[in-house]
Amino acid sequence: MPNKFLRQAATALLVLVVATPALADEGVSAEMFTVNNLWMMIATALVFIMHLGFATLESGLTRAKNTTNILFKNTFIVSIGLITYAFAGFNLMYPGDFNGYFGFAGFFVTTDAAGVTSAYNEGYTYWTDFLFQAMFAATCATIVSGAVAERVKLASFMIFATIFVGFTYPWLGSWKWGGGWLDAMGFYDFAGSTLVHSVGGWGALAGALLLGPRMGKYTKDGRMTPIPGSNMPMATIGVFLLWLGWFGFNGGSVLSADPALVSLTLVTTSLAAAAGALGAMFTSWAIAKKPDLSMTLNGILAGLVGITAGADQMAMWSSLAIGAIAGVIVVFAVMFFDRIHIDDPVGAVSVHLVCGIWGTLAVGIFGEMAGIGQLWIQFVGVLAYGAVAFGSALAIFGLLKMTIGLRVTPEEEFEGLDLAEHGMHAYPDFAGVSAGSMGSK
Amino acid sequence: MPNKFLRQAATALLVLVVATPALADEGVSAEMFTVNNLWMMIATALVFIMHLGFATLESGLTRAKNTTNILFKNTFIVSIGLITYAFAGFNLMYPGDFNGYFGFAGFFVTTDAAGVTSAYNEGYTYWTDFLFQAMFAATCATIVSGAVAERVKLASFMIFATIFVGFTYPWLGSWKWGGGWLDAMGFYDFAGSTLVHSVGGWGALAGALLLGPRMGKYTKDGRMTPIPGSNMPMATIGVFLLWLGWFGFNGGSVLSADPALVSLTLVTTSLAAAAGALGAMFTSWAIAKKPDLSMTLNGILAGLVGITAGADQMAMWSSLAIGAIAGVIVVFAVMFFDRIHIDDPVGAVSVHLVCGIWGTLAVGIFGEMAGIGQLWIQFVGVLAYGAVAFGSALAIFGLLKMTIGLRVTPEEEFEGLDLAEHGMHAYPDFAGVSAGSMGSK
Amino acid sequence: MPNKFLRQAATALLVLVVATPALADEGVSAEMFTVNNLWMMIATALVFIMHLGFATLESGLTRAKNTTNILFKNTFIVSIGLITYAFAGFNLMYPGDFNGYFGFAGFFVTTDAAGVTSAYNEGYTYWTDFLFQAMFAATCATIVSGAVAERVKLASFMIFATIFVGFTYPWLGSWKWGGGWLDAMGFYDFAGSTLVHSVGGWGALAGALLLGPRMGKYTKDGRMTPIPGSNMPMATIGVFLLWLGWFGFNGGSVLSADPALVSLTLVTTSLAAAAGALGAMFTSWAIAKKPDLSMTLNGILAGLVGITAGADQMAMWSSLAIGAIAGVIVVFAVMFFDRIHIDDPVGAVSVHLVCGIWGTLAVGIFGEMAGIGQLWIQFVGVLAYGAVAFGSALAIFGLLKMTIGLRVTPEEEFEGLDLAEHGMHAYPDFAGVSAGSMGSK
Repeated sequence: MPNKFLRQAATALLVLVVATPALADEGVSAEMFTVNNLWMMIATALVFIMHLGFATLESGLTRAKNTTNILFKNTFIVSIGLITYAFAGFNLMYPGDFNGYFGFAGFFVTTDAAGVTSAYNEGYTYWTDFLFQAMFAATCATIVSGAVAERVKLASFMIFATIFVGFTYPWLGSWKWGGGWLDAMGFYDFAGSTLVHSVGGWGALAGALLLGPRMGKYTKDGRMTPIPGSNMPMATIGVFLLWLGWFGFNGGSVLSADPALVSLTLVTTSLAAAAGALGAMFTSWAIAKKPDLSMTLNGILAGLVGITAGADQMAMWSSLAIGAIAGVIVVFAVMFFDRIHIDDPVGAVSVHLVCGIWGTLAVGIFGEMAGIGQLWIQFVGVLAYGAVAFGSALAIFGLLKMTIGLRVTPEEEFEGLDLAEHGMHAYPDFAGVSAGSMGSK
Repeated sequence: MPNKFLRQAATALLVLVVATPALADEGVSAEMFTVNNLWMMIATALVFIMHLGFATLESGLTRAKNTTNILFKNTFIVSIGLITYAFAGFNLMYPGDFNGYFGFAGFFVTTDAAGVTSAYNEGYTYWTDFLFQAMFAATCATIVSGAVAERVKLASFMIFATIFVGFTYPWLGSWKWGGGWLDAMGFYDFAGSTLVHSVGGWGALAGALLLGPRMGKYTKDGRMTPIPGSNMPMATIGVFLLWLGWFGFNGGSVLSADPALVSLTLVTTSLAAAAGALGAMFTSWAIAKKPDLSMTLNGILAGLVGITAGADQMAMWSSLAIGAIAGVIVVFAVMFFDRIHIDDPVGAVSVHLVCGIWGTLAVGIFGEMAGIGQLWIQFVGVLAYGAVAFGSALAIFGLLKMTIGLRVTPEEEFEGLDLAEHGMHAYPDFAGVSAGSMGSK
Repeated sequence: MPNKFLRQAATALLVLVVATPALADEGVSAEMFTVNNLWMMIATALVFIMHLGFATLESGLTRAKNTTNILFKNTFIVSIGLITYAFAGFNLMYPGDFNGYFGFAGFFVTTDAAGVTSAYNEGYTYWTDFLFQAMFAATCATIVSGAVAERVKLASFMIFATIFVGFTYPWLGSWKWGGGWLDAMGFYDFAGSTLVHSVGGWGALAGALLLGPRMGKYTKDGRMTPIPGSNMPMATIGVFLLWLGWFGFNGGSVLSADPALVSLTLVTTSLAAAAGALGAMFTSWAIAKKPDLSMTLNGILAGLVGITAGADQMAMWSSLAIGAIAGVIVVFAVMFFDRIHIDDPVGAVSVHLVCGIWGTLAVGIFGEMAGIGQLWIQFVGVLAYGAVAFGSALAIFGLLKMTIGLRVTPEEEFEGLDLAEHGMHAYPDFAGVSAGSMGSK
């Protein structure tokens, strides 16, 4: 080998090393860091769009006279959620070194120069990390919104949501994702069947319990009167946007763009959603003799919530089983809560709490570490989160009930929260308010 | 050149080679594989959102009394589509070595460790491949849904859709994308003007033919009574979501994130959509003296379907021409089918079948291999797909018609499929069902 | 060090250099170019979806009798916007070497082989560049659409939009983003608080002024009659889609996938949006005693417009301050324009013009080069853009008013533009047009 060849090779090499220092110096190249961070930012955008999904789903499944109120609540939640998470939540949830139960890294998000390089994390910058987690946080309070719809006093709900998203959710989240005691114990919850959905679901249950059912929902002799949703296209838009958003919710929880893990996660997520739809569809068809759109839509959500705890590690058959079982469960859960007269207008407790518990336990049944030991740990996690999330939601809602009150007056409820709380209609031209505004007939 | 310099260079090189083995060992680096796969996953999400586009478009262009039924059908299709494709479709469409006409790689999707690396494909993992193709498959049956809307019996349509998406579409797809006889012949269909849209369009035509027109659409003396769509914002949402989804449909069909090819494809796709809108708008304006929103929206879809077969190889002028001509064609096609009393509530046959054929032939006129030879091959492909897709759709629908029946009763059709099939309204508060549910006036 | 080792190293190196020539030859690797371009394409898709956001927002905030017309206008704008930008706009906005005031690189977009490599730009191909900028261009005319809604003559608006998007916007854009005189002066507008939003806002103001208020909006004794929007879920969908789209609008304006800059930009953008929501919510609550959904939604947009000029360089506190102040401003701006009887049905002037000016000035207050000098330069930019954008919009609208007329007849306005201009309803089944089309009651 001639010397000239070696010299050329060495020179080319140095050019290469200088041009791409990250390759030689760190565990991940600048390119890999950029593509990882790109996926995490896109996942953030997808989780953001779930807030529109929740807003349209909830407004579609409730009456037209409460639509403005629902849209207002959901707009408020994402806004206050982002701001409280910037102010305290992120540092509560990821406190760094802490005792495993409670820690706080200080007020307001901020970082140094290293925070925006792969020195912070090979998968994302500090800012991406914050925003992705902030979008998650806000979903938790949104879940509660559906269960208390059509009768909750606006100001009370706003206070509840602020505390729940700003304190309860991130504090409880630290137990697992912040590296706390449940993480140390081996509890597994990939993307939040428990940490997000059950926690939100417990809040929803507490709210529905303390509020009581909507006027006219249950008659004195114990029968249930269906209160149909006012806008099924809106509800359908909501569920499809939530499914889309779940690509980011679960896919982003890989915390990098790892091709194997993310693509597997999207497949398990989608198959569980599809199986949930069919499970709920056929179950409700068998029971009610008619195929029910609302139940089918809730079946999709049930499958999605169910797969979330183990979406990174399920086989195809397991994904289908988890989703289909979630779809069956959600139908019976909705019937059960109606039977015990807990009025949940959109089925939030059935979808997020019940299927969240199912998904968390399913990790111990179908997951990589399936077994009685893991199942026990999953069960402990479910209990621990249930006790504290439910307890704290009861406490917040209870205090509000004792002070400023939790529920609108019967007159306001009859009139609709849109007029009572906001002085406007969501669909004025359709309510006959504005003469001629539909155009000539 | 001192020895020390060479030694440092060689050491750095080994670090480099070890750190990024893909660079040295394979045709594509780990980074390139990751970014390719990322784009394919995002394209998958974009194609997924097309299902919401179809659902909102179809529900917007039909009457409010059938809206729940339409939303239900579309929710079912994406769910059953994913599951049948996992069960059999993917292995039917990509059977590996086969005789070019029919092959099957076995039930259910599964892969080994190599399936999630670039050893499977430089552009994506096995799971991404499956999910991207599965989202495509489901669109094919959705196209049929629009043409048979407002009168098809739900159970019959569900059976048809299951067979069509689970068997017909993937089998026919194998002829080209699976490496079958039409691929060997040189037939070109980049992203599915024929394989997806025409195949779906042939199914739509078969369904519309066997069902006959909706009650009241054509009077006895042969005149056509327009049945206006109930919700134009929904229809518009549908078309914009479809355009968005087409970024993934065509852009993802590059099968990698190749900057040159994907960006060209997005430009040709968007210009064709825009030209289709203007083509249909001005054509319908000239004919009806009023600018028609539905036609303009269908013009966008016409342009998108038209460019799909050659979106990776068209010049700007060609893209505009293909789109504009598609926009003109769709207006005349809608009028033609009305004249021969084939009732297609959303214009699915005109958009997907007619413009799908146009786009496929356009590859032989404007494409890189344009010429009479290529045009002939494209024509053969159109004929072959037409014969078998139309024939098999006629057979499935025909068998259903002879057995459980294809059409609801006149009473059910008059009442609306929402009540007849599902026992509910899509917009109960607006139908005056729930007193007071719009709020006080 | 043995010779064999060196020889192996050199061979591996050559493989490496051959396999990834970009690494050695250019400033950016093929992988980095691919990921950068990928982000820019996704940002393009996100900006595209803003057009659906504008369409749904505008149709939600206006009366049902004008909904088809609004959807038609917005569909037209994105179509004609893309085509005129391909035809002339792109080459007007980025003319290459020019005198700083006006330049034109020739008709129609086209490129050579280098245009699709990183030789064109390290962040994107020529085609991505064109499409991203084309999507921006079309938003500018869409802003005008909202202010002239419910009374503008369709043909006149179409001519205005074609000229404004095809000529005015790209010409004015060249002053800064094309490297013109304001760029040379140090004027800063990261993603278009002035170049897009204020320019559109000036057009909106000109249109609203020349058209005059809608019939019945202001009584003879000077009082204002609210004309409520017909569909609040649509308006909410619009604002959430716009927020989502802004991830691409601002995030894409980084012009690469740079992890640090893009993720910071998404955080400042989202925090400003959230702060804008709260700012407008509490301001309108304090004034009107009821929390107003429309104002809260406009507060989100106000925050987004406000942060746009400096989204790449703001601290967290500054982002919150800019957004919150924008939210307060937009409420008072809406009240101000109502007081002086400028009727802007969706608040486009308040959101895009007033908050666009605020955001541009905020760069001189909170930005990296904050100070009286920068503030002065920002002020000069605001004035220059205002003078020419407002002047040219007045000229175009004025000429149209003198020739074919700008406003529909009072009869047409009363009847609604859907019937008058398009001969159809947006919601026929709800208007009682089609008997029985809602289904039995």
